[in-house]
Amino acid sequence: MKDKFLYISSEDIYSLINENYDYILSTVQEALLLTQSDTVIQHDKTSLIIDERTQNRINCLPATILDKNISGIKWISVFPSNKKKEIDNVEGFTLLSETETGKLKAILNSSLATSLRTAAVGAIAAKYLAKSNSKVIGFIGAGEEAKAHFKLIKCVIPEINTCYFSSRTKTKITDLINELEKLYPDVKFINSSNDYEEAASNSDIIITAISSQEKVLKKKWIKEGSLYIHVAGLEDEFDVALSANKIICDSWECVKHRTQTISQMYKKGLLKDSDIYSDLVDIINGRKKGRESNNEFIYFNSVGLALIDVCLANSLYELAVEYDKGNWIVK
Amino acid sequence: MKDKFLYISSEDIYSLINENYDYILSTVQEALLLTQSDTVIQHDKTSLIIDERTQNRINCLPATILDKNISGIKWISVFPSNKKKEIDNVEGFTLLSETETGKLKAILNSSLATSLRTAAVGAIAAKYLAKSNSKVIGFIGAGEEAKAHFKLIKCVIPEINTCYFSSRTKTKITDLINELEKLYPDVKFINSSNDYEEAASNSDIIITAISSQEKVLKKKWIKEGSLYIHVAGLEDEFDVALSANKIICDSWECVKHRTQTISQMYKKGLLKDSDIYSDLVDIINGRKKGRESNNEFIYFNSVGLALIDVCLANSLYELAVEYDKGNWIVK
Repeated sequence: MKDKFLYISSEDIYSLINENYDYILSTVQEALLLTQSDTVIQHDKTSLIIDERTQNRINCLPATILDKNISGIKWISVFPSNKKKEIDNVEGFTLLSETETGKLKAILNSSLATSLRTAAVGAIAAKYLAKSNSKVIGFIGAGEEAKAHFKLIKCVIPEINTCYFSSRTKTKITDLINELEKLYPDVKFINSSNDYEEAASNSDIIITAISSQEKVLKKKWIKEGSLYIHVAGLEDEFDVALSANKIICDSWECVKHRTQTISQMYKKGLLKDSDIYSDLVDIINGRKKGRESNNEFIYFNSVGLALIDVCLANSLYELAVEYDKGNWIVK
Repeated sequence: MKDKFLYISSEDIYSLINENYDYILSTVQEALLLTQSDTVIQHDKTSLIIDERTQNRINCLPATILDKNISGIKWISVFPSNKKKEIDNVEGFTLLSETETGKLKAILNSSLATSLRTAAVGAIAAKYLAKSNSKVIGFIGAGEEAKAHFKLIKCVIPEINTCYFSSRTKTKITDLINELEKLYPDVKFINSSNDYEEAASNSDIIITAISSQEKVLKKKWIKEGSLYIHVAGLEDEFDVALSANKIICDSWECVKHRTQTISQMYKKGLLKDSDIYSDLVDIINGRKKGRESNNEFIYFNSVGLALIDVCLANSLYELAVEYDKGNWIVK
């Protein structure tokens, strides 16, 4: 018998997930709980900077989960300069190998899974950290990542009834709202155009999902009791984090070595380890309290963990085998 | 049109290379010459240690060559514990993406290419560094890596007429000699069994190609004027390198951060940067003299460069496109 691996295409992934956000949420939450497990080996993430000016880069995110017999890597290009060429700026593939033999078992197209896993982490943060009775959500950014965040947060907080979208690109907002209005008739969508203040200052949950490196979110816009979900790089002024009652991360140990807003503040001495309240996992498993009052402003920072990519890819691989999706390819 | 990448299997690679060692040698030499080019971005190599005891690991070797519009990574498992299970202990795949857009263009099975590129670097070292009139070659190790080294060195030094093989595993030697005798009737193959001294002390070119971490090669066995090609990890006593007239590497900057014999000596303070004579590329392009007399003992250390893997994969990709090999797969 010839040695084979399973290739799982973008179309396969779509058909497997089939808008089944509960599946994504539970898989990602399970993966988050593994972050402190001793069956997980965390490896260094590498970012291959192809062009310093455009920040075109390819990220390599490896992780090993021994008790799942899996070691994998996500190879994902993030090319801001693709926008001008009107081609996707993110494309990812994940390789999965067995830890018992080192043999490759699957390669997956991870472009869709990447935006879904990021949104799922944000949604899980919202579930645990948003104030009770949160109804209004506001976005700076109106791309794929914003859309995925809306859908997954709406899953965990069905009471959301108002949603602001703001963006530099006005046509993007119109298209996105047209699409979402049909799917969510119970939600009032408001086009804030490029008025970021309107989107932020009215919201219980604020999300910045943009790829530019500009400090667009201002402290003065943030109302008492809100939750801010920071997704990308440097999109908020330092005063936002400084005014937070709690700063919570997917993994502070990973965040601190990177270049996001709070990573930069840490490197400048504006934040210390002790200023970080906890990682999300400690709140999920009850080791730390989450929100303690409806007045707290909570800052959640997601860096994107290789462990989650690899766990999600492995779950999708198992689903693909179960439903006979993908193509077996001779090595 | 749907987005596709080219998958190039092990069988495709065999058919493309078709024992065309000159192609491998020229491609690898061209890649070596790029090591100091400013169109190349060297990235960190990561070794995912899956098991400290067995040293089962997966190495991630990324490299970017801007003027070839290529950024790639080799994902290669090295599992010494597979030997007991009688399955291959090395399996590798290379992903190639375009640096202009970040889009994946190919995935290649790199298992064969890996042993060939290592042997090609050794052969190029032999071409430039072996003494004139070298006729005798001796191996410690009789596996795939030893075989590939023999074939490629014989390509560059056709005068080789005697070859010693020694190994812990005696049956391996018999099988290997049976295979090579048919192909090289002009060479006398000698089975040294586990007598490493015989294999080393009679040879103009000595190669250690073993996967154990034992200092099997002794200084006293090395005759004047020989070239030693160090392929693996820690397989020679420190006195071997200390007695060398010249130590030459594929890339000392890469070697010094690793765990090979001379890397360990460097970390212990037994070797300094100034003890390293040069990188091979400086000898190829004439910036440094290579061998200056037939009395010198030269120590060549190859660590395995991601740049060479990615260049070779890219050349094989171009060959595959030209000869219509591989399968185009919808992303």
